[in-house]
Amino acid sequence: MERVAVVDGAMTSFGEHWNLSLRELAVEAGRKAMKNAGIGPKDVDALFIGNMAGGYFNGQEHLASLISRELHLAPKPSTRVEAACASGGLAARMGHLSILAGAYDTVLCVGVEKMTDLPPENVTSGLAMAADGDWEAYFGVTFPALYAMLARRHMHEFGTTEEQMAAVAVKNHDNGVLNPNAQFRFPLSIEKVLKSALVSDPIRLLNCSPISDGAAAVVISKESIAKKLTDTPVYFQGSGQGSDSIALHNRVTLTTLEATVAAGKMAFKNAKLTPKDIDLVEVHDCFTIAELLAIEDLGFIEKGKAGPATEEGVTARDGRIPVNASGGLKSKGHPVGATGIAQIYEVMLQLRGEAGGRQVDGATRAMIHNVGGSGGTAIVNIMGRD
Amino acid sequence: MERVAVVDGAMTSFGEHWNLSLRELAVEAGRKAMKNAGIGPKDVDALFIGNMAGGYFNGQEHLASLISRELHLAPKPSTRVEAACASGGLAARMGHLSILAGAYDTVLCVGVEKMTDLPPENVTSGLAMAADGDWEAYFGVTFPALYAMLARRHMHEFGTTEEQMAAVAVKNHDNGVLNPNAQFRFPLSIEKVLKSALVSDPIRLLNCSPISDGAAAVVISKESIAKKLTDTPVYFQGSGQGSDSIALHNRVTLTTLEATVAAGKMAFKNAKLTPKDIDLVEVHDCFTIAELLAIEDLGFIEKGKAGPATEEGVTARDGRIPVNASGGLKSKGHPVGATGIAQIYEVMLQLRGEAGGRQVDGATRAMIHNVGGSGGTAIVNIMGRD
Repeated sequence: MERVAVVDGAMTSFGEHWNLSLRELAVEAGRKAMKNAGIGPKDVDALFIGNMAGGYFNGQEHLASLISRELHLAPKPSTRVEAACASGGLAARMGHLSILAGAYDTVLCVGVEKMTDLPPENVTSGLAMAADGDWEAYFGVTFPALYAMLARRHMHEFGTTEEQMAAVAVKNHDNGVLNPNAQFRFPLSIEKVLKSALVSDPIRLLNCSPISDGAAAVVISKESIAKKLTDTPVYFQGSGQGSDSIALHNRVTLTTLEATVAAGKMAFKNAKLTPKDIDLVEVHDCFTIAELLAIEDLGFIEKGKAGPATEEGVTARDGRIPVNASGGLKSKGHPVGATGIAQIYEVMLQLRGEAGGRQVDGATRAMIHNVGGSGGTAIVNIMGRD
Repeated sequence: MERVAVVDGAMTSFGEHWNLSLRELAVEAGRKAMKNAGIGPKDVDALFIGNMAGGYFNGQEHLASLISRELHLAPKPSTRVEAACASGGLAARMGHLSILAGAYDTVLCVGVEKMTDLPPENVTSGLAMAADGDWEAYFGVTFPALYAMLARRHMHEFGTTEEQMAAVAVKNHDNGVLNPNAQFRFPLSIEKVLKSALVSDPIRLLNCSPISDGAAAVVISKESIAKKLTDTPVYFQGSGQGSDSIALHNRVTLTTLEATVAAGKMAFKNAKLTPKDIDLVEVHDCFTIAELLAIEDLGFIEKGKAGPATEEGVTARDGRIPVNASGGLKSKGHPVGATGIAQIYEVMLQLRGEAGGRQVDGATRAMIHNVGGSGGTAIVNIMGRD
């Protein structure tokens, strides 16, 4: 069975795209990815779309059919997957597995979300559909509130501080300033984060990733074809997927996301690698506490120590294990269905040495971590040049 | 690469389940399928969920996470796919390909939709999100209207009559009377169909499949495991998927669904079979015209001749090529995300000789056809005992 590699990719800038629709964002990223890969629609066997809530945000389901024609791919197979904010990562995983199955040689994976068609309070309601509708969202809980509970428990058990969470935001903005596609390209300070408006104690405005519009796309092929299309294929070396109770009240613990642990173990086992082999990590920092949980749950930092490690610069771009060199969801933006594909695109650039000012020197192997909801789904991939 | 087979399955009855929620329907079908297969959650490696519009109908996205815990499958991978009314068929196809990829040995595929939580006019609006939001639904078009245009064109080009479309409904109700899980277990007459209320000329109420609640589930495994679990595995012999412009106005023709043609060709090529090899077909008769289009587009009846063929009994249970022995979507009901899985369950029963009063004698090979929207997606599978 041949391995699978990323040939090339593209992304729109993330931000507020008042002049572009859901379809236009997806088409822009998809077309650019094919162009960058030096191929056309005739070279693509199938399309995979990651999108969370086109129905609620834009009145559009059945997006795979819509985009297949816009990209001149119909009548080829087109598949939409949804796993809340992990929809993009899941689309890439399904594309990857479909190639391994022998169904296709080359697929285009597109992640997209258009969130600014609705007022922010409605976006918050829409995102809450990623939580338990009957037992969480019905009672008014929002995602900042869910992550606030995770943060509060982490503070209680391990002494994590608001300053340490703020340090995640400061680091990620420092990186995002260097990313031309990032939504928030300005530096933060610990003081500024701590003085920002309280959203859901202890989470403040500057602990949150933004509401964003955007799309990202990657062309992936089986190894023999990828090698013909590019001199710099970036391989899927390990892939994992995990799930957990959608509702926090059914979990064994609030300081570990079991879906992340399961997906990480599967990816490491699959790749026959350990955290020490990884040069660079892109994790799902929808809130600053989420980054702390992720780097612990993936095994890069001992449980409970992610706060101090972040303060000490362990996860900085020049630290022992650079985390979110792209700026992360916090600074780069978080069009939910696009995020998982944008992470793959970032890692592709990093592993090819094309990440410009935010380049992590000598990175040859990277991990990507994409979460749905408050941890109900996690997708983890290990990507490498060899 | 080992083949993949259905071990066993289950479905809820289709109809109006006022006392069961989206989650309860999915759990009932999923549990029963595992029980019928003689396995428990520990034997299942991953879950695939087909659901069209849990967000709009029930305020619930991220259904794969929700159901994974309810079925005690978490932290194993759980994936939701959406392709409008082909969501169930797509879930099974993604489960099937994931096994071929070597990612899993046994997966549970669940299709579910709970449509009666909203008033019927809102359900119609929700379903319209399977059409082009900007260029069809925005202008008020509904699915009966879209299929009415397909019907009118078929009548214009081939002389298809309202009586012939009514004959589809009569045949399918004759079959559905014999299906204990069907929503409408009563016979129709041509006269009754032709006198029913006009919904969108020439489509009348009794040309339409109903609004339904329900779920269906199948356990599928790679061959070596399926053979251990059952004496009667039913194999996926060929599988196809196609797409087309979501909007009617971009299509080359209105009397052929190109997605069906593409998916059918892929499945036949995959299986190295032709229409003559098939004993039984379950097609996507969301409206009676859809059945006529399907049996032509799949190659069972010459283009334009499906109307007369239906009148002559060619597609009756004892005809040359029995179509929708289950009662079809028309009589069995159409909880949109569940339909594709329920079709697989029906074919499994038929090929095992367990379909009771509606059994097609001696059936050893069957085709399943599941459509999303007005033909934007089609999934076709060929299933057989050998």
